[in-house]
Parts: sequence; C-alpha cells; structure tokens
Amino acid sequence: MDATANEARQRHPLEGATALTWRDGLWIGQTNKDYWAFVGQYGGATAAVLLRAALDHPDRIGDPLALTVNYCAPIAEGEFKISARPARTNRSTQHWIIELFQTEGDILATATAVFARRRPGFTHAVMSMPKAPPAAQIKTVALPGPSWLEQYEMRFVAGQPAFGRVPHAVPQPSDTMLWMRDAAPRPLDSLSLVAMSDAFVGRIFQVLGVLLPFGTVSLTTYFHTAAAEMTTDDGWILGHADAAIFRDGFADQTARLWSPDGRLLVSSVQTTYFRDPVPEGK
Amino acid sequence: MDATANEARQRHPLEGATALTWRDGLWIGQTNKDYWAFVGQYGGATAAVLLRAALDHPDRIGDPLALTVNYCAPIAEGEFKISARPARTNRSTQHWIIELFQTEGDILATATAVFARRRPGFTHAVMSMPKAPPAAQIKTVALPGPSWLEQYEMRFVAGQPAFGRVPHAVPQPSDTMLWMRDAAPRPLDSLSLVAMSDAFVGRIFQVLGVLLPFGTVSLTTYFHTAAAEMTTDDGWILGHADAAIFRDGFADQTARLWSPDGRLLVSSVQTTYFRDPVPEGK
Repeated sequence: MDATANEARQRHPLEGATALTWRDGLWIGQTNKDYWAFVGQYGGATAAVLLRAALDHPDRIGDPLALTVNYCAPIAEGEFKISARPARTNRSTQHWIIELFQTEGDILATATAVFARRRPGFTHAVMSMPKAPPAAQIKTVALPGPSWLEQYEMRFVAGQPAFGRVPHAVPQPSDTMLWMRDAAPRPLDSLSLVAMSDAFVGRIFQVLGVLLPFGTVSLTTYFHTAAAEMTTDDGWILGHADAAIFRDGFADQTARLWSPDGRLLVSSVQTTYFRDPVPEGK
Repeated sequence: MDATANEARQRHPLEGATALTWRDGLWIGQTNKDYWAFVGQYGGATAAVLLRAALDHPDRIGDPLALTVNYCAPIAEGEFKISARPARTNRSTQHWIIELFQTEGDILATATAVFARRRPGFTHAVMSMPKAPPAAQIKTVALPGPSWLEQYEMRFVAGQPAFGRVPHAVPQPSDTMLWMRDAAPRPLDSLSLVAMSDAFVGRIFQVLGVLLPFGTVSLTTYFHTAAAEMTTDDGWILGHADAAIFRDGFADQTARLWSPDGRLLVSSVQTTYFRDPVPEGK
C-alpha cells in the first residue's frame, strides 16, 4: 500500500470503528458513532472489528477465508474488549475463536474465523455477475436512517428500499441489487468487504414495505480471493442480496459482492429475527 | 415421539456417532466406522455430534437455528471430548461455543450454535422447491466410496457423480439434485438434517470429473423451521447443492434441503479446500 492509501485509511471512520489496542492479553476497542444502527453498533462494523482482532494478531497466518459472527446482544456506546485465540494452526489454514464483551462475563458477540494461505491454481467461476448498468449511469440515493447508512454511497439497480406506514398486503420482491462504495474513499480490504457484506437493509423491510424490529442473529462471510486481490479500481462493489424464507420470526439473507470486472469477492449468509407488524388500530 | 420411533433411533448408526456421556464438565463421544470419509470421520456426523453437545445440554433453550462448524484437523478413530458452553442466554435465543478434541489442547473442530424459540407468525417462502420427479419414480444408486455414503439412500435427479481418471478439459456443471434419506429409517430431526446438509460430494469432483484431495473447512447450516416440524412422511429430502466459485485451492458450496411437500427445512454453505489435479505423466 502506498503512503496516500495508508493516510486515507488513517482518516477513515472504519479505522475508528476497528482500531484496537493490545492490553493484558485482550484487544481494547471503542464503538464509533459513524456506524450506529437502530439498536447498538452496526453489525457490519462489529464483524469488521472481530475479524481485525485475528487479522492484526501477531500469530495470524494467511488471508481471511471465512468469518462467522454471532450477535448475542447489542453493543452499547463506549469501550469493548475482544479475546481472540488461535484454536488451531495448520500449515496453510488457521482457526480462531473470538469473543467480545464490555463487562467481564457478559458476552455480546462471538465469532470464529478461518485464515488460509492460497496457492495459485485451478480457477473456475460457475456463477456470473448479474447484469447491471455501470455505477456511473445511476444516481446516488441517500437513504434516511441510522448513521451507518451515511458511510456508504449507494446506487440502486433494483429493490431500492421504500418504507410506508402500512405493510403490503401482498409480499413484494425480496432482493436488492446496488452499486456501493465507502462514502469516504478507502482502499477495499477484508475489513471493508465484511462490513459491506452486512450493508443491506433487512429483507423483511423489502417484502412488507415497513420498518420492523429486526436484527442479524448470525452472519457468515466467505472471502473468495487472496487479500492482495480484494481491490477494485474505484472502490465500487456490485452487491446483490436476497432471502429464501421468512418463517415464524426468523429469515435467512444471502448477499454477494462483485468487483466491477466481474469477480465474486465475497459471499455471505445471515439468519435474522424480525417482529411481525402490529395490525392497524392495535 | 412414540415408542417405535424412539426404538428406531436407538438402533440407528447416527445414534452411535452422536451418543455422548457427560463426565467432569465435558461430553465424551466415540467415532463411528459407519460414518467414515476418505480422511477421518464424515464431516456431517461431526457436525451432528457438535450440535448434540448443545442440544442435549441441560441449560439449552429453544430449537436449533444456526450451526457453524470449523473442521480444524481430521478426527482419528476412537474417543473424543467436547466442551460446550452457553456464551449467552437471552429470552428467546441462546449462543453456544463448542470445541472438540482427542488430546488435551489439540483442537480438532470448533463450532458456534444458535438456538431460538420461534413464535408462530408471518411466513413467506420466496424460493420454491425446484421441480423434480417424485422419489418413487427414480432408482436408488449406491455410490462407491467411504462408509458414510452407505448411510444414505440416494436417488439422483441431476448431477449424479461419475468419476474418471483424467480431469475434464472443460469444467462440467457443478450442481447436483437428489432425493435422499437415511438408509436405516430414522425420524428426521436437526441431527440428521445437519448431517445431510453435508451429504453432497465435493463440487470440484463434479466439475472436473475426478476425485482429488478435498475437505470442508467451514460449514454453516441454518434451520428454517421449528424442531417439531423437521419431519417428512417417508424421510425423503430433496437436496440441491451447487458452487459459485473455485479459486486457488478453495471453493464455496451451497445446499438446500426440501421436504417433499415443498418446505425449505435447511440451507447450508461451506467453504472447501481442494488440490489441483496432477497433470498426466507427472
């Protein structure tokens, strides 16, 4: 990374949200108001700082391959601590167990991470990037809502969120496709990609057209390329999110992040909870 | 469950593979030759016993919602120990951290599990079961290979595995669709479903048409229905597996398990490693 890129990172809100200091065998971090959600910190920022706890650990080998984050309870504004330990180090893979808390014994998030050394070899893309007009041809939309939304420039290809007061009688399409990038420029890396893998509003909002109590319960993100190849020329990512099933308070959500030149950089799945809409007049 | 169902479970190989005894704060289990893979125990059986370590724990609340298993190293034949602790218990969700080892300090698998109490409410299936002729119209195929394959009755709709000595010059389709059920009848539950969510041979084998050194690195399985509704009349499940990307030694894999009446019971993703084929004559 050149000096300019490094400077850009230093200034960036994501650096604030993922800055960690090592003290007595634990990482110490601080929540960042730039990444606030309806309740507590934006899950994508939490995922990024949990990944960073392993990524910046002196014992880490290889590049991020998989990260699973379990959101146990909201993280309140202020300091938090992260314990990160390599459960196993093999020749080319390493497995981590990570836990975040603010008060001793009161776990707010758990994670497992896998790192791997890739060897150049057989490469074959089964899935192609979905067709979309280039980002330059679409207008940026500023979604109203909590502060994390301001951290991304969003240009919608399909499924732009639009919320009313009354739920749709007939469920609407659940998918969203958009170009997005960091609002404040920053070279893409595994930290920004994992944050972006959560940067889709709840699919239940799309389907019912209303905001409801909602949260990610567990998020799994896979990185499909070596760290050195996680860049795109202008920072744009084509994101495509969808869901398969909403049932009895829980739903899944899938997301894929593509580089403009058609490489699948990241895919993620999450399981989410939601509360049913309250019928009118209640 | 009625007495007959309970008896069937007692006799079933999956009971052997997932039987656990509590001793000094740890679960003690035993590998089962019925679920053997090319190297070590079949990953689906390992996932099932890790889930069971939380499921059968006296502190557990709710039904399985999400399970992530990280395969750190092969499990050798014999006894293993599992530590399972609830990292957090909320009113309606519970988060677990689970570790498996055979020798103290030598972790072979890690897992996180989420359990949840579902409340009947808004239900909407976005994705429909893929079209397939009924299981009764398709012949059972016994795939040659390690013992775990014998535990499932498999009837292929598409993508039946067929392996040669020389890799295809042009990559072949990566997906497989099949009806499957436990070869020895057993009522479906979260344990058998998680085992089945891994019961697809590596997608790299389909694409290249050869067997290669291959393994699951991390497997995430979501349960989309309450435990009481994880049954199907005759035990059949329509499974559909695919991959999006093979790149530099690693690939993803997705799988969905449907009940014959069209309910999505389980979806899973995994990240896998593979070795490139050795060119002929080397």
